[in-house]
Amino acid sequence: MRPGTLISTWTLDCFAGRVRSTSDLVSQVCDPRFINPQTGPFYVEGAEPGDTLAVHFRSIAPREARGVSTTVPLFGSLTATALTAMLHDPLPERTWVYEIDRDAGLVRYDALDSAYQVDLPLDPMHGTVGVAPALREVRSSLAPGDWGGNMDTPEMRAGTTCYLGVNVDGALFSLGDGHARQGEGEACGVAVECAMDTELVVEVIKGATPTAWPRLESDDFLMTTGSARPLDDAFRIAHTQLVRWVQELTDLSTMDAYQLVSQTALTPVANMVDTTYTVVAKIAKRYLPGATAMQDVHERLRSR
Amino acid sequence: MRPGTLISTWTLDCFAGRVRSTSDLVSQVCDPRFINPQTGPFYVEGAEPGDTLAVHFRSIAPREARGVSTTVPLFGSLTATALTAMLHDPLPERTWVYEIDRDAGLVRYDALDSAYQVDLPLDPMHGTVGVAPALREVRSSLAPGDWGGNMDTPEMRAGTTCYLGVNVDGALFSLGDGHARQGEGEACGVAVECAMDTELVVEVIKGATPTAWPRLESDDFLMTTGSARPLDDAFRIAHTQLVRWVQELTDLSTMDAYQLVSQTALTPVANMVDTTYTVVAKIAKRYLPGATAMQDVHERLRSR
Amino acid sequence: MRPGTLISTWTLDCFAGRVRSTSDLVSQVCDPRFINPQTGPFYVEGAEPGDTLAVHFRSIAPREARGVSTTVPLFGSLTATALTAMLHDPLPERTWVYEIDRDAGLVRYDALDSAYQVDLPLDPMHGTVGVAPALREVRSSLAPGDWGGNMDTPEMRAGTTCYLGVNVDGALFSLGDGHARQGEGEACGVAVECAMDTELVVEVIKGATPTAWPRLESDDFLMTTGSARPLDDAFRIAHTQLVRWVQELTDLSTMDAYQLVSQTALTPVANMVDTTYTVVAKIAKRYLPGATAMQDVHERLRSR
Amino acid sequence: MRPGTLISTWTLDCFAGRVRSTSDLVSQVCDPRFINPQTGPFYVEGAEPGDTLAVHFRSIAPREARGVSTTVPLFGSLTATALTAMLHDPLPERTWVYEIDRDAGLVRYDALDSAYQVDLPLDPMHGTVGVAPALREVRSSLAPGDWGGNMDTPEMRAGTTCYLGVNVDGALFSLGDGHARQGEGEACGVAVECAMDTELVVEVIKGATPTAWPRLESDDFLMTTGSARPLDDAFRIAHTQLVRWVQELTDLSTMDAYQLVSQTALTPVANMVDTTYTVVAKIAKRYLPGATAMQDVHERLRSR
Repeated sequence: MRPGTLISTWTLDCFAGRVRSTSDLVSQVCDPRFINPQTGPFYVEGAEPGDTLAVHFRSIAPREARGVSTTVPLFGSLTATALTAMLHDPLPERTWVYEIDRDAGLVRYDALDSAYQVDLPLDPMHGTVGVAPALREVRSSLAPGDWGGNMDTPEMRAGTTCYLGVNVDGALFSLGDGHARQGEGEACGVAVECAMDTELVVEVIKGATPTAWPRLESDDFLMTTGSARPLDDAFRIAHTQLVRWVQELTDLSTMDAYQLVSQTALTPVANMVDTTYTVVAKIAKRYLPGATAMQDVHERLRSR
Repeated sequence: MRPGTLISTWTLDCFAGRVRSTSDLVSQVCDPRFINPQTGPFYVEGAEPGDTLAVHFRSIAPREARGVSTTVPLFGSLTATALTAMLHDPLPERTWVYEIDRDAGLVRYDALDSAYQVDLPLDPMHGTVGVAPALREVRSSLAPGDWGGNMDTPEMRAGTTCYLGVNVDGALFSLGDGHARQGEGEACGVAVECAMDTELVVEVIKGATPTAWPRLESDDFLMTTGSARPLDDAFRIAHTQLVRWVQELTDLSTMDAYQLVSQTALTPVANMVDTTYTVVAKIAKRYLPGATAMQDVHERLRSR
Repeated sequence: MRPGTLISTWTLDCFAGRVRSTSDLVSQVCDPRFINPQTGPFYVEGAEPGDTLAVHFRSIAPREARGVSTTVPLFGSLTATALTAMLHDPLPERTWVYEIDRDAGLVRYDALDSAYQVDLPLDPMHGTVGVAPALREVRSSLAPGDWGGNMDTPEMRAGTTCYLGVNVDGALFSLGDGHARQGEGEACGVAVECAMDTELVVEVIKGATPTAWPRLESDDFLMTTGSARPLDDAFRIAHTQLVRWVQELTDLSTMDAYQLVSQTALTPVANMVDTTYTVVAKIAKRYLPGATAMQDVHERLRSR
Repeated sequence: MRPGTLISTWTLDCFAGRVRSTSDLVSQVCDPRFINPQTGPFYVEGAEPGDTLAVHFRSIAPREARGVSTTVPLFGSLTATALTAMLHDPLPERTWVYEIDRDAGLVRYDALDSAYQVDLPLDPMHGTVGVAPALREVRSSLAPGDWGGNMDTPEMRAGTTCYLGVNVDGALFSLGDGHARQGEGEACGVAVECAMDTELVVEVIKGATPTAWPRLESDDFLMTTGSARPLDDAFRIAHTQLVRWVQELTDLSTMDAYQLVSQTALTPVANMVDTTYTVVAKIAKRYLPGATAMQDVHERLRSR
């Protein structure tokens, strides 16, 4: 993958297309070893450990006119899980199918046990975006961490640039897990899953302060992420990262940056369902007048 | 306090006005026993255990042209605390003063260690709103819980109705801890604190499903809160409450309501600094067409 | 209550004696407002804020030849609870009756759904031991905290001295929640509950470093407690307290005391079921040769 | 590696021998990529996915007459870390050297900042014991999980049998991280680290209920482990595993097994410092008369 070149690619949905109707249950039609397949890894020319990889999403669009969501036994935020282990039986396993109207920008929620229907805004994003981890680890695409991965934040939409610290030569960038939309927290563990057509362009940033955890930039916001359990630690990571970033961009002292972030941050939960949980901390760029992040790569990539 | 009557009241700031300048440090000028003084408790006529108290905020306005924020030793989300106990020395104790321009709707951040200044939107709210707890407990106004209390959510602004389960005759409603604005999470532990002039009207709801945890309603959103540690449990409370509320308002089955909430909820962290932490879960009312919450009291109170 | 005088008292079991047979279910026979009744509060002559109250248990003996244990809906460590809220139905509610053979020092476990029986050692203790909280709070006897309360540690047995920081004149000491025995963690939320005959003697320690969290001393161990959620914070409190205590007793530097504690501490979980969870950290006194804690009050009280 | 054959092997210490004196600081002499080197992986003949690998430790003995412990910046339970991220500076980095007297069975603690010395019992164990993870992951030897790994429990001593679920052909067993002794929780993050001479014998158990999480058996106890964050989840895993194991060995119903475990379990914290935390739950075999675990392999291996 060459920096600066527009890449058109596509991704499978997290079930590799095996969940097609409300009678397809994940535990019956999917092999757990092949859940959440990724597109990649891509070798990014010139990327070396210590660099920062910028990934700008030009467009993210559902490949099909429908998406699916499910519950999965012992997975989700309001159920006992393999880690939050309890003596309860699993909640029922169900599958919902959403019609997607790409022209109208809507996805239709259709209740299973009653006639309730409601249209929700289409808001496509990638749940999983990452590079190879440090320490020569190989991680499941279900896991989020400091390499990115399965962060499941709705902020990963078109128009956003994601920054990832490079751990190995070529970065080994991959993406997948398209969501037609997702609530913050992804409570039941599964968003409106669909295959995606995605256009993106990458850039390799040399000489910047290495990015310990994934960051995002939109036209209006700088964002940090933390992925850990409990959610408290995900919050702490995201907020210390935001304090440090603000400090770097403004020359504020640590305590002054802490204060400014305390009064301005937005803090949406991304997911509380994956192997670790993800919190996003956001600051509006208008509170940082004159600041330019990451050598202004977001502005360059979005305007190309 | 008589239901249906507009009440004009006011509250002290959380330091009882003792922090006036950047040289006033909380540990020197405040007695920890008298931090976060409340206005009240008010006996609400007709309120009985099992009822729900609705508190609609008509207006919340700073009484003075300035607010203060501080750090406090061993308090905040990015520091060791009395509960997240560590061997570190406390972070430095500092005080910031914010000029408030009520006409322009701005509060001015002024860095202590450099010349950095930036105007932030004024967004007044009450950090602490509650009734008497159950089980005859008497709780510090620093604590949030199922009785409300120090939830520190920026959603508690004018135009919002807060619902609180009544535990004792007369409910014993109180409020305080005005914030000229606050970031989500209130990372350093202290918002832009100021005394407030507040207009509110209360209503007692009889015969509704009792409200186990505080809820909020604005013109556009239904919101639930959970206050617990870790943040995971606060999330779980807020989201199960939202699933149950949606279920009640729509006749959806549990799993259908879980699914709808999963794809639509917003989940901002309110605070991660108090004795327990607070998470808010929100669903846009437009996804619940035809639903009427709490006997439509929000609509009645806002339009009065 | 006069310091230095042997007190003979008794306590009700946590159900106030209302659970008598396997067909008595807590949710049917108990009023939640009156769960876990305490004996006291006792006004301790001479106790003032800043002092430390030492409570030495001379003997703790079951008043009757049987105890009971139960499950309680949405209570316990392996089930969804009011705070770890989920969409599961509660686990089944059951009651077990244990015969207590005081002479043989045994309690008999008797399975409900099969003929399985096994004798367990009698090991009587008090789950709830405390003083009045700080900040003029009034807390439920179900809650543990820095005032003591419902810590549910099996270390609170005869022969042990418990140290509690005094917050109000007279300390207002109380105790209850006798357990014929208890596993570490008290997983299902209820131990082998029974009324107790208890002999104790108190002492007021003046001029010692105030005890921020309850501590215990036996003939062989110094112990600290921390009560918080998550269990991580309970661990952090107990261990920082132990490091500080060792430091005070030995003149070791902070880092040296941290090192010594790291290689020697025992760390049993006390309970993971109450409103906050309790962890105990223990160091054998033989690793602190020559050290004398709390003005040697344990030695004086045990030998009296 | 052939099942049933006594293996004599040895392991490096977790610093690969690079920390030799009190002036060797980990951050200066060690490369973080090579911390905690393991011996192995060994291909165990006949081991297949779904089997259980039994590893019986015949002897574990320090190879040298000394061990070392250290603090490491942003690592440990009483400090801010990379995950429990805060704005504090790291605690001081220090190194302690322990003389080991193998004949007397003692390790000598020697304070750095004073003349304090005390002898502690030698109690050798392996901190890291594991097989290849599931889902084709490759994990750092710093991580504990359901494959075993860096559990850091003092129970992993000679005379104990460790049971591990096999995920790949040949199991790919490895071990390392010898500790001359360790406190429960390993508070500062580093035990008394030393190279070890270790004798062990493995067995492959076919047809047993697969072991979801590592288990241990000694002559007197059955033990389960859970590794997760927060510690609450590690507790929940260990205790549900113990309930399920007791149920399987005794034919008790789930609720009866939950009750028996609740009154008998010991629950020491193993570590609260690694990438996830480990809790052990133990039940004395004498409370399970007649029960035989894992086809009695512990008895066969210990008596060989």
